[in-house]
Amino acid sequence: MASEEELRDLRQEIAKTTGKIVHLIATRNDLARKVGDVKRRASFPIEDPKVEEALVKEVVEECDREGVDRQVGLKVLSVLLSEGKRVQGLQGKQPQLITPMMMAAKAAQLQAAGRKLVRLDVGEPDFRPPEAVVKACSDALYGFKTHYTQTRGVPELVTALRKYLERRYNYSTTEGQVMSTPGGRFGIFMALSTVVKEGEGAIIVEPNWPAYKEILQQIGGRAATVPTTMEEGWEPSVEAVKAAIRPNTRAIILSYPANPTGKIIAPAKFKEILGVANDAKLTVISDEIYGDYSYTPCPTILQGGADRFILTASFSKTWAMTGFRVGYSVSSEELITKMMKIQSLVMTSVPEFIQYGAIKALDSDAEVHDNARRMKDRIDLAAREFDKIGGLEYAKPDGAMYFFPQARKPDFDSSAFAMKLLEEKGVSIAPGTGFGNYPRCFRISLGNSDETIVEGIRKIGELVG
Amino acid sequence: MASEEELRDLRQEIAKTTGKIVHLIATRNDLARKVGDVKRRASFPIEDPKVEEALVKEVVEECDREGVDRQVGLKVLSVLLSEGKRVQGLQGKQPQLITPMMMAAKAAQLQAAGRKLVRLDVGEPDFRPPEAVVKACSDALYGFKTHYTQTRGVPELVTALRKYLERRYNYSTTEGQVMSTPGGRFGIFMALSTVVKEGEGAIIVEPNWPAYKEILQQIGGRAATVPTTMEEGWEPSVEAVKAAIRPNTRAIILSYPANPTGKIIAPAKFKEILGVANDAKLTVISDEIYGDYSYTPCPTILQGGADRFILTASFSKTWAMTGFRVGYSVSSEELITKMMKIQSLVMTSVPEFIQYGAIKALDSDAEVHDNARRMKDRIDLAAREFDKIGGLEYAKPDGAMYFFPQARKPDFDSSAFAMKLLEEKGVSIAPGTGFGNYPRCFRISLGNSDETIVEGIRKIGELVG
Repeated sequence: MASEEELRDLRQEIAKTTGKIVHLIATRNDLARKVGDVKRRASFPIEDPKVEEALVKEVVEECDREGVDRQVGLKVLSVLLSEGKRVQGLQGKQPQLITPMMMAAKAAQLQAAGRKLVRLDVGEPDFRPPEAVVKACSDALYGFKTHYTQTRGVPELVTALRKYLERRYNYSTTEGQVMSTPGGRFGIFMALSTVVKEGEGAIIVEPNWPAYKEILQQIGGRAATVPTTMEEGWEPSVEAVKAAIRPNTRAIILSYPANPTGKIIAPAKFKEILGVANDAKLTVISDEIYGDYSYTPCPTILQGGADRFILTASFSKTWAMTGFRVGYSVSSEELITKMMKIQSLVMTSVPEFIQYGAIKALDSDAEVHDNARRMKDRIDLAAREFDKIGGLEYAKPDGAMYFFPQARKPDFDSSAFAMKLLEEKGVSIAPGTGFGNYPRCFRISLGNSDETIVEGIRKIGELVG
Repeated sequence: MASEEELRDLRQEIAKTTGKIVHLIATRNDLARKVGDVKRRASFPIEDPKVEEALVKEVVEECDREGVDRQVGLKVLSVLLSEGKRVQGLQGKQPQLITPMMMAAKAAQLQAAGRKLVRLDVGEPDFRPPEAVVKACSDALYGFKTHYTQTRGVPELVTALRKYLERRYNYSTTEGQVMSTPGGRFGIFMALSTVVKEGEGAIIVEPNWPAYKEILQQIGGRAATVPTTMEEGWEPSVEAVKAAIRPNTRAIILSYPANPTGKIIAPAKFKEILGVANDAKLTVISDEIYGDYSYTPCPTILQGGADRFILTASFSKTWAMTGFRVGYSVSSEELITKMMKIQSLVMTSVPEFIQYGAIKALDSDAEVHDNARRMKDRIDLAAREFDKIGGLEYAKPDGAMYFFPQARKPDFDSSAFAMKLLEEKGVSIAPGTGFGNYPRCFRISLGNSDETIVEGIRKIGELVG
């Protein structure tokens, strides 16, 4: 049959073309190996982000010229880049970064061995969850609310979330625009998985929570960073955001109040950045987990201005419910549907009785105000204590629950300092390199009693000198 | 400088080679478009798995010849295959499969609208979780066990899990070989993500839980299926397993007692399959979620025989704790470490107070025996009821909590039947096509009272005739 022959011929051509592609990968690897040799000989830096940027641009242009889907070209490029780096044989030379989670693991180990520590590393409020939450959750447990639920959440929680958004942000949603999530982290994972495909990228303002970059890496995405400095009050420049946009950029992650700096961006500047994002057709992922710990007016994505956004939020900080692993997301129905597909696939739903606890949290205004007031007092307290230490400076946080001081010494190594502080003084902190290229900075968490905060900062002072 | 020039030249070569690869992708797409045209003209079937198999083989051989990492070649091939299918323009023609989750959503919708239904679709026991579990979980809540924990789980849970494995399976573990997970589904997700990279594959014995295939798809993996039939008692043949192994196969998923058939494979056959897996260097992912609902001796991966395995298990079925979302995994320290990296990244940990509930479950032997006995009685009850229906036959389940009958009529369409049954009789079931190519079969869940089971099966009988 003619069609069958034709098909066989076409398939042979396809196989041959596929073989040629493999051959070119081998050629490319040979070239990468040579690059590795030259770099080793000449002691050049291992990675040059400009080189990768240029390749992304060329591949996108080549895709457009050849009529190939950009996502396909970028994904293949992503595979080629990783493989190229591997065969250069220069990997494993980057210093291991110490993230807050690694610091927490190290400190927990020492504690398990009997060491008494001042734990300033963990970003976890020491407040209790609202009584009403604990009671509702326990009642639901005893009331046999121990079943699978809809992926979005039980209807009562969805309704409560929508009412809360209306009351708190004056923001109306359809049912399809909200979902509960097993924590803010999982919300970020779903948001990034939905918006950024392998080989595409997202913009991250630094310093920032390390999970953004780590999750991007996990899904094969690329981070373009917009660094900010303490000297400029951790203020991102709109120009720098614009400059970070590449042809493969699909999203920008904003999070105010920021972790670790406590920075709150001015609402006008926020809007300007949203405008830049809109122009480049980016999705704005706004992580507003610290929104209730704001001491200057904090912008929210729900105030409008973004054409395409995903809000991720959590019950962890506002209501001190870290160990409940529950949060929520708000976006378009289209994006929430895509996110729910992931949640349905790997989690089914948030545990049912926890959802009933979450409903009560949304009504716990008194506790929210109380927690916020106490955190504000701690920021003031920490500022007074840090003022006594000559070797450190800081930009006072506008919100959140951290301090991110910077050593005056230009060659200060916060990783070495953190280890020494833990060994000699029994105080655990999170080194600045975990949040970006900030070796002179470190983060302390104010999720601790006044006494602990004072004790910890004084011991830091003893070692900083 | 000479080195700099050399580097510039090499980079230009790399860019050129990359461009050539994009060009070949365009060539390949043109060929795929032509394949689409021929198929449309000649009404050929859309996909031919043999064609893909052949390409996988050729790419692996080409990689070996050219010294390219197989994973790199397979991943690029995976991108090319998806893109090829897309440009063929023949997609979207496959009938939408109705999974149990979709059926559940549809049924829940009707219930929300006030319709009274007999729900035989959801794989969820109607038993209560053990009192001790509810109490421990509630006590932990009130006791402020509401914090982040180690990713693996609180030390008490890890110890309890290890003791349980020792007692229940006579299996000794190091601490590093076990972890708690937020449900069995998440365990499968982590296991597959760890073992199967994009473009690689896993073997699935069908019929089986649809999540395996869906999760594989999500991570870009390929499923090779080993179909079994009711006529042969849902027995997989060792030869068929061998025949399903391709050069890109990295894992085989086994799950006994099986969902939806209730089949338990003979331990000797299980060992034989492990031998085949070992020879091909596959990781055996053994999902033993229904292990405690076994009415003939059920093999466990912990009895030995697999060189490389991951056990996934859950508290959901044995202890009726579906809505707690908690399970556990056992493997080598190396694989558990990799799985924990994913859990740490996207979830942090299982909610702390739930972990304290899980500890108590591991001691609830009386409830386990009680639940198992009741489920056995229901299997017998359902068998008696199905025996009264002339139009159906079945292989009696050896375990689990389902029946998977098959219509005698060769052209029976279980999806249409399920819809009609729901509309006309108010009974929801899960059509067989959700579990593989089983249009004549459907699944009913025995996680219901005797009365409900009898009522449901009788109504099925009224419609089957």
